[in-house]
Amino acid sequence: MQFFRPILLINGILLTTLGVFMLVPGLVDLAMGNPDWKVFLAAATVTTFVGAALGISNWGFSGDITLRQAFALTTFSWLAAVTFAALPFAFSELGMGFTNAFFESMSGLTTTGSTIIVGLDTAPPGLLLWRALLQWLGGIGIIVMAIAILPMLQVGGMQIFRLESSDSSQKILPRAKQIAVSIIVLYVGFSIVCAIAYGFAGMSGFDAITHAMTTIATGGFSTHDSSMGGFDSISIELISIVFMVVGSLPFVLYLQAIRGKVGPLYRDSQVQWFFATLATLVFLLALYQMQKTSIEFSEALRHSAFNVTSILTGTGYATENYMDWGTFAAITMFCIMFIGGCAGSTTCGLKIFRFQVIFAALRVQIKRMIHPHGVFFPRYNNQKINPDVVSSVASYFFLFFACFSALALGLSLLGLDTITAFSSAGTAIANVGPGLGDIVGPAGSFEPLPDAAKWLMSAGMLLGRLELFTVLVMFTPGFWRI
Amino acid sequence: MQFFRPILLINGILLTTLGVFMLVPGLVDLAMGNPDWKVFLAAATVTTFVGAALGISNWGFSGDITLRQAFALTTFSWLAAVTFAALPFAFSELGMGFTNAFFESMSGLTTTGSTIIVGLDTAPPGLLLWRALLQWLGGIGIIVMAIAILPMLQVGGMQIFRLESSDSSQKILPRAKQIAVSIIVLYVGFSIVCAIAYGFAGMSGFDAITHAMTTIATGGFSTHDSSMGGFDSISIELISIVFMVVGSLPFVLYLQAIRGKVGPLYRDSQVQWFFATLATLVFLLALYQMQKTSIEFSEALRHSAFNVTSILTGTGYATENYMDWGTFAAITMFCIMFIGGCAGSTTCGLKIFRFQVIFAALRVQIKRMIHPHGVFFPRYNNQKINPDVVSSVASYFFLFFACFSALALGLSLLGLDTITAFSSAGTAIANVGPGLGDIVGPAGSFEPLPDAAKWLMSAGMLLGRLELFTVLVMFTPGFWRI
Repeated sequence: MQFFRPILLINGILLTTLGVFMLVPGLVDLAMGNPDWKVFLAAATVTTFVGAALGISNWGFSGDITLRQAFALTTFSWLAAVTFAALPFAFSELGMGFTNAFFESMSGLTTTGSTIIVGLDTAPPGLLLWRALLQWLGGIGIIVMAIAILPMLQVGGMQIFRLESSDSSQKILPRAKQIAVSIIVLYVGFSIVCAIAYGFAGMSGFDAITHAMTTIATGGFSTHDSSMGGFDSISIELISIVFMVVGSLPFVLYLQAIRGKVGPLYRDSQVQWFFATLATLVFLLALYQMQKTSIEFSEALRHSAFNVTSILTGTGYATENYMDWGTFAAITMFCIMFIGGCAGSTTCGLKIFRFQVIFAALRVQIKRMIHPHGVFFPRYNNQKINPDVVSSVASYFFLFFACFSALALGLSLLGLDTITAFSSAGTAIANVGPGLGDIVGPAGSFEPLPDAAKWLMSAGMLLGRLELFTVLVMFTPGFWRI
Repeated sequence: MQFFRPILLINGILLTTLGVFMLVPGLVDLAMGNPDWKVFLAAATVTTFVGAALGISNWGFSGDITLRQAFALTTFSWLAAVTFAALPFAFSELGMGFTNAFFESMSGLTTTGSTIIVGLDTAPPGLLLWRALLQWLGGIGIIVMAIAILPMLQVGGMQIFRLESSDSSQKILPRAKQIAVSIIVLYVGFSIVCAIAYGFAGMSGFDAITHAMTTIATGGFSTHDSSMGGFDSISIELISIVFMVVGSLPFVLYLQAIRGKVGPLYRDSQVQWFFATLATLVFLLALYQMQKTSIEFSEALRHSAFNVTSILTGTGYATENYMDWGTFAAITMFCIMFIGGCAGSTTCGLKIFRFQVIFAALRVQIKRMIHPHGVFFPRYNNQKINPDVVSSVASYFFLFFACFSALALGLSLLGLDTITAFSSAGTAIANVGPGLGDIVGPAGSFEPLPDAAKWLMSAGMLLGRLELFTVLVMFTPGFWRI
């Protein structure tokens, strides 16, 4: 029981905070005369009460937690937050069951962006704001976690991003606090700039704020069923592209840039690879689309730039149903959904640095084949990669595709057709949002899926968001035997 | 030019042998009064002539080749053999163009089993025998290569199968000869036993011999459009299952078993994993099928046992159109197509040992996460795995899926629908045979695909068969710069 006390304490603090955040959409509903404010008040009361109870009953925790506690803390915090954040959906006038509410909440906090709700345009503003807030909180939550906690947990090669060489797991929390404050300030700043830009480009104040929150978090929830396509504005799309990209780069590098060291930002090989990948894909799909649908290149480029950025970064906004562009576009979108952005950003997926590490290992492999007696080392950002990191990244790739296959198989057992099953599994585990095909594609919704499929996908989203290992390690007997 | 002389010499010997083998189906056609014997005579003449010319003009080669020559030799030998083996198809009364002939020949020699020909039941016997012969020769070719050459080339983790610790690349050919003789004797023995068994089970002499050749080679070419399903005989299916499995185990272990050391065969962890995987999958799909189609368990088990064995081992025979079993079955078949059998067998795919290596790395990863200061090593067959091997296997996985994605994208660019494109790419690179869907599924044929798609798939089959690196290394600038 002693093991869980700090975990319960932190969960208590987290839930209390979440409860307070619930008041924001409640106040908006109240101000706009929408009866839904009662829903938020009720949810906030329950959440704050549970949070406060947990916090008070476990008070007196010293600040040091063990490595195992850090794993458990991470998983349980997200689960608890998702469960309570689902309450406003469950209580609301939309009449969602708890399954749908949980799915929507998980999709929000993991910044996935898959939605159950059809009829966003007429949904109460409080709920729309709540969805945006969830993604926004999820986005900052994951950055803080990726920077401060995952490198210590040595999850899937994240150890190369350790901020200093000493890896004492005892100091996780104090360090997290330090970094978190700067990052949060930065994140709030970006969000404000993005919202102002959206406003200038013609969005209403409400749309600008909610979309800014879901853009910087690369989440992808919109307040309209037609997503970003409904605005049909080049300037809005451009702003969106810029801030999806901002959300996909390593946030620590921004901190350095602000302190005057801009070099690391544009010299970082992960950043360079990200831009190279993005540019290549945008150009390729623009060409393909132009050839297929006989539109002009500028038009094709616009569609391609927006939708490729949206899928590659795992945001999930759509301006077009790219299923109509042809099979090549659909398959490309399916493949790039797994790539994601940079480590230490709000994006999910495998992430660029893992491809770099594997690619470096591959190069060395080929060199060794040609010169069997030569000595070669894989490098990342001009530094030797430890063999442990290669092994770690390789395990991550393997586990990722194993989980993806298991999820796809599970979904197909529940009766989903091949394309819906594969793409739903992919979009969940890579935290993207839309799938492929008529049902879950960019023009569809996840509402028609059976309940069991929604639970499976929720599990997939959590796994993907917490970098698989963080969750799965707790299912190994060794974890509890110590 | 000096670089190519031994390569040309060995290609000469190889083509001369191939030309002589062409006389076999020619004689069969002649004996059965089929005019196609002229086709084989013409093809044999051309092939033997070219082979002899290459051999004589490059005579005087000492026996030692360098590592780089070994790479070039491997790739060029397969390409040359496939090209000349295509001649009988191109010249034949079936009127196949060279593209179709090359595809069929590649599918034969790589033991893939995808076919262009519709109307096998009425095709001339010489051609049917030629198809079977190609798979049979391809099967033994790949075993010899996997045992004697690939471990020296350090391709994708194959170095753990080095037969002795000294890895002097100078001695590749003499060693290959030694091992090849024993393996060839064994292979011929298995084929004879298999043919006799098929004969006793009711096949005609011709069917028994051709099917024995394509069973032991895990190739999958049949002499009937209905594949193995046409015989509708449990005993034939059982014999087929046994010999597909025989073809999927490491042939070196048979050699040891014959010399009295049976232990290594059943204690080998790769063999154990293979059987465990096979049994689990057969059982699972039988249960699923029973539930879906309301047939009896024994009937479902029969279908499942045969078709799962056929796809897992990359053979590609079918007794059932498993597309009709439901989405789960289709997705499972798609996933297991990538697994394959053991290293040093006639199977293709990723192969069991690579999954074991990655899985071992994954276990160590998780242990390290829980005990960051513990010391753990991944193990294969109770021996420590060198970090290089893990990296090598990881690179292989990555390259495999990169090639698969590139192939699927290429095929989709040529207009194939999503399922046809994905499954054709998979079936080519894993050397399986049938794909999924109405066109290329177990009940279809590859004939309707555009020519460019057939060339792409041929490239995929060669890549998959030669373990990717062997071919791709020659496309790196470093290979030619030495």
